[in-house]
Amino acid sequence: MLPYLKRFLIGRPLKSHEASEQKLNKKKALAILSSDALSSVAYGPEQILLVLVTLGTAAFWYSIPIAVGVLILLAALILSYRQIIFAYPHGGGAYVVSKENLGKYPGLIAGGSLLVDYILTVAVSVSAGTDAITSAFPGLHSYNVLIAVIFVLLITLLNLRGVTESASVLAYPVYLFVLALFILIGVGLYRIATGQVAPELHTSIGTPVAGVSLFILLRAFSSGSSALTGVEAISNAIPNFRDPAPNNAAKTLMAMGLLLALLFSGIVYLAYYYGVSPMGEVTVLSQIAEQTFGRNFMYFFIQGTTALILILAANTGYSAFPLLAVNLAKDKFIPRMFTVRGDRLGYSNGIIILGLLSIVLIMAFKGQTEHLIPLYAVGVFIPFTLSQTGMMLKWLRERPQGWGLKFIINTIGALISFIVVIMFFLTKFSQVWPVLVFLPLIILLFYRIRKHYDAVAEQLRISASKPVVPIDGNVVILPVAGITHVVENSLNYAKSLSPHQIIAVYVPFERGDEVAFEKKWETWHPDVRLVTLYSPYRSIIHPLTKFIDTVQRKASEANYQVTVVIPQFIPKKGWHNILHNQSSLLIRAHLLYRRNVIITTVPYHLQK
Amino acid sequence: MLPYLKRFLIGRPLKSHEASEQKLNKKKALAILSSDALSSVAYGPEQILLVLVTLGTAAFWYSIPIAVGVLILLAALILSYRQIIFAYPHGGGAYVVSKENLGKYPGLIAGGSLLVDYILTVAVSVSAGTDAITSAFPGLHSYNVLIAVIFVLLITLLNLRGVTESASVLAYPVYLFVLALFILIGVGLYRIATGQVAPELHTSIGTPVAGVSLFILLRAFSSGSSALTGVEAISNAIPNFRDPAPNNAAKTLMAMGLLLALLFSGIVYLAYYYGVSPMGEVTVLSQIAEQTFGRNFMYFFIQGTTALILILAANTGYSAFPLLAVNLAKDKFIPRMFTVRGDRLGYSNGIIILGLLSIVLIMAFKGQTEHLIPLYAVGVFIPFTLSQTGMMLKWLRERPQGWGLKFIINTIGALISFIVVIMFFLTKFSQVWPVLVFLPLIILLFYRIRKHYDAVAEQLRISASKPVVPIDGNVVILPVAGITHVVENSLNYAKSLSPHQIIAVYVPFERGDEVAFEKKWETWHPDVRLVTLYSPYRSIIHPLTKFIDTVQRKASEANYQVTVVIPQFIPKKGWHNILHNQSSLLIRAHLLYRRNVIITTVPYHLQK
Repeated sequence: MLPYLKRFLIGRPLKSHEASEQKLNKKKALAILSSDALSSVAYGPEQILLVLVTLGTAAFWYSIPIAVGVLILLAALILSYRQIIFAYPHGGGAYVVSKENLGKYPGLIAGGSLLVDYILTVAVSVSAGTDAITSAFPGLHSYNVLIAVIFVLLITLLNLRGVTESASVLAYPVYLFVLALFILIGVGLYRIATGQVAPELHTSIGTPVAGVSLFILLRAFSSGSSALTGVEAISNAIPNFRDPAPNNAAKTLMAMGLLLALLFSGIVYLAYYYGVSPMGEVTVLSQIAEQTFGRNFMYFFIQGTTALILILAANTGYSAFPLLAVNLAKDKFIPRMFTVRGDRLGYSNGIIILGLLSIVLIMAFKGQTEHLIPLYAVGVFIPFTLSQTGMMLKWLRERPQGWGLKFIINTIGALISFIVVIMFFLTKFSQVWPVLVFLPLIILLFYRIRKHYDAVAEQLRISASKPVVPIDGNVVILPVAGITHVVENSLNYAKSLSPHQIIAVYVPFERGDEVAFEKKWETWHPDVRLVTLYSPYRSIIHPLTKFIDTVQRKASEANYQVTVVIPQFIPKKGWHNILHNQSSLLIRAHLLYRRNVIITTVPYHLQK
Repeated sequence: MLPYLKRFLIGRPLKSHEASEQKLNKKKALAILSSDALSSVAYGPEQILLVLVTLGTAAFWYSIPIAVGVLILLAALILSYRQIIFAYPHGGGAYVVSKENLGKYPGLIAGGSLLVDYILTVAVSVSAGTDAITSAFPGLHSYNVLIAVIFVLLITLLNLRGVTESASVLAYPVYLFVLALFILIGVGLYRIATGQVAPELHTSIGTPVAGVSLFILLRAFSSGSSALTGVEAISNAIPNFRDPAPNNAAKTLMAMGLLLALLFSGIVYLAYYYGVSPMGEVTVLSQIAEQTFGRNFMYFFIQGTTALILILAANTGYSAFPLLAVNLAKDKFIPRMFTVRGDRLGYSNGIIILGLLSIVLIMAFKGQTEHLIPLYAVGVFIPFTLSQTGMMLKWLRERPQGWGLKFIINTIGALISFIVVIMFFLTKFSQVWPVLVFLPLIILLFYRIRKHYDAVAEQLRISASKPVVPIDGNVVILPVAGITHVVENSLNYAKSLSPHQIIAVYVPFERGDEVAFEKKWETWHPDVRLVTLYSPYRSIIHPLTKFIDTVQRKASEANYQVTVVIPQFIPKKGWHNILHNQSSLLIRAHLLYRRNVIITTVPYHLQK
């Protein structure tokens, strides 16, 4: 039943050597890896205006120079990540770059914040997309959380089917969104050029504004930089590209940067020229669309594709998180299970964990994840800063040909990213302080996990461990509950092990049972020694454990090994299990985890 | 940690022979076994008036003859259950009586409906009591469900500590409630006798009423009979009484009947004389108390003890449910675990299941369980009818001395109970129909469980089962994951079993690993045969299972037994478990449940 459902949902398993067929071409890669970055243009320009509006609408012209600043940062980041792609063609992005150039802890800070960040990406973008949909259908509004959870489940399932299948499905909405925005910007610019938009709507650039300060401008700049979250995704996901992977990834990155720059500047410019002011219920993008087209088909097309791409932005998290997790798991900082490929060759444990954790976030915040956005932005700019700094050191150390320009690019990227981080802490401390709590906690956890794996490896190494104790004979202990076919079956097996000694153990709860059972046993199997352990407190485990301890003490003196043979009912139907007291399982778990005895389970399959 | 918490919450374990010290004297038994019945007087009279008010307030005088009818039914039930106590001194009540005199299915109907009924008792009474408390403190009203759940948990814990301890704690509120009502009735009657209550408030008995019909009167009667739920509890719980148990139980039953009769008739009479009319927010009992005392201390005392006894009524369920479950489990109709005594000698599984299921009910109905009351009442009167009918047949069959009177008593009880059941179905079908669904389902479940146990017993009987297959030798299969100390340890054990053959099995996911591992093995343990099973789909279980099937086929031809030796990491700390892929557990569960192989687990305790 369950296996069939699994087949139906995620498809037939793939052989390991089919992995190369699961690689992405540039067009598909652009679609699924840039959805996060591209979707940010739906809210990035608005973030700038939200800060400027505190100075009055006259200050809106500042959005133009601020946007230029964001574009410079974007250029620095894109060029810089392009260099990272060629320098680290096996992926891993900020984590690997920081680890190799700055050391273990900076690497873990970068890796830990990106790991958390991808969970935030999924939660925030799916919640935002769901909001956009339910504002169109107010009847659905009270089901927000449920709808968001269903979207997460769908995206998780799609990713479990494999990266190419999800890319094929998701490419359309991404390209439709880009097309819609290009039409919007084109028509908007045409209307401005042909004088259809009144120039009185905006204040001209350079108009003096009362109360303006560098602090406020930097704040607007860092808010606007949130449009750049997601540009690092490609550098994490290089292994998903077709060969030659680094070249393809670099080209995809450049294409994404270009698209992002065009869309971002177009929207900022239209918002400025139209004199759009941020409003509570209607987004800036929606206002621009309405002023350009009126409420016709194009308006709804833009609204619809925006909602869709917000949800699909989550998919970037699904592409990057599992690969980052593989890198961390290979270095033994997170559980090894993240390196296991699933049936469809994706790192399914990472995909499933990402889905589960973002569902937990969505439910915990009841679908209102907007105030997680600053947290999410700062979680991206910390690794940005670290990886650029790492690259600076790399160039300084290696000094390849033409390193000067490369060094300058990374220095500019590092500086601006660092300023953005500082601005987030200075201006939105109430929303970003959790970073200061969970980052140290995550790094502590990474450290503890690594320590455990190192300790285990040390214990398993044959040369290092103490030699195996020789075993000169076996003592078999057989707990019995009555004179039944099950016991006879197990006894028969115990005898076949040609052990040194077999001891049957009976634990009666009533004094009277003791003698009666001993007599019955005597006539049934006089050759096997029976020990009865009266248990006044009606516990089987305690007297049994005590007895085994005694036997084990004596046995180990003679280099004998103690084995406990436990019969276990296997009913024909699952629900029958609750009809049998699961003493076997309890005894087994208790002995295995608390004592150093070997447990042999003899199944007894019930026929009906 | 956990064991200490358990000790703290429920106390030290008791030895089996201490059971007799856990028995109840009459005073305590009356308190905990009659709280359900006595608490019904808080709402029984109101139920009568709620039906009569549809005819107008002039019809209220009918409450007097109807109350007389209820008292007759009460007398018949009490006398009849007294006879049941002596006839079936080991308890079991309606279930045992119906089963022995009417047959298996009537017994199961009685047992099944009582079992469900005790769950309803707990849910309904705790919800009602919580309501009474939160109406006094409206700020708590939105926490109704939480408060009710906490009460259920407290009562569950108290019962896990043992029946005598819960009786000691719960006796006070019950007797305070009885005292409060006696003072109320006494003062009320005194005020009537001294003429302080205006006689114009009530219509005199015999006043003609328009629209009255036998149907409405029977309906009022059956509603009033809901005050009698709980009178059967004592007959289920005879084993909890001190010796001579039947005599003590019979005396307690008579005392309860007397108290119930006095309180019920007193309240009905005061309600009639005061001309109290049922109101939505204020209970009839509260109106009587207010008219008698005004809003002084006594009024709040009565309100408080009423709220308390409503909650404690749940305890009757806790006394009766586990004992009824023991009887059903002994007859193999419900899982055997219900017959196991806990640390404190109570049947703790029954207590815990009852608590859990009533919490589920309270949460499912969000604490609004009022409309479960008719369901609950009909669930009591079905077993009433069946047990009385059973007793009738018993007297007819056995004809002991003086059986005529006994027969008449049971006949009256059976008839009136039957009428009440019919009236519930005729007048409140929309609320009681679920009985017709869940009773057949429960009985089907009982039947399936019994069938399974019978089949198992048949298979276990040594004479009946096919003789044990002789074992001439052992083949040991040892799955290995690498060249480590763990593998060496397990291999050492496998060798000590002096088997016919040991086969190490390695499952590589990559073609390249195969040869490399074979070479390493050859230099490490050339004496042990290694089989590598390349797994293109990265599954360990499938190729392993296939291989084991092949080995088993050959082995069974030669009467050889196949044993799979599985090494299992036991980390030092619980959380470390998620750092190791739990392949051992998966392989073990899969092989044990799907195949007939013996699984030997060799623990490897990590030192750090």
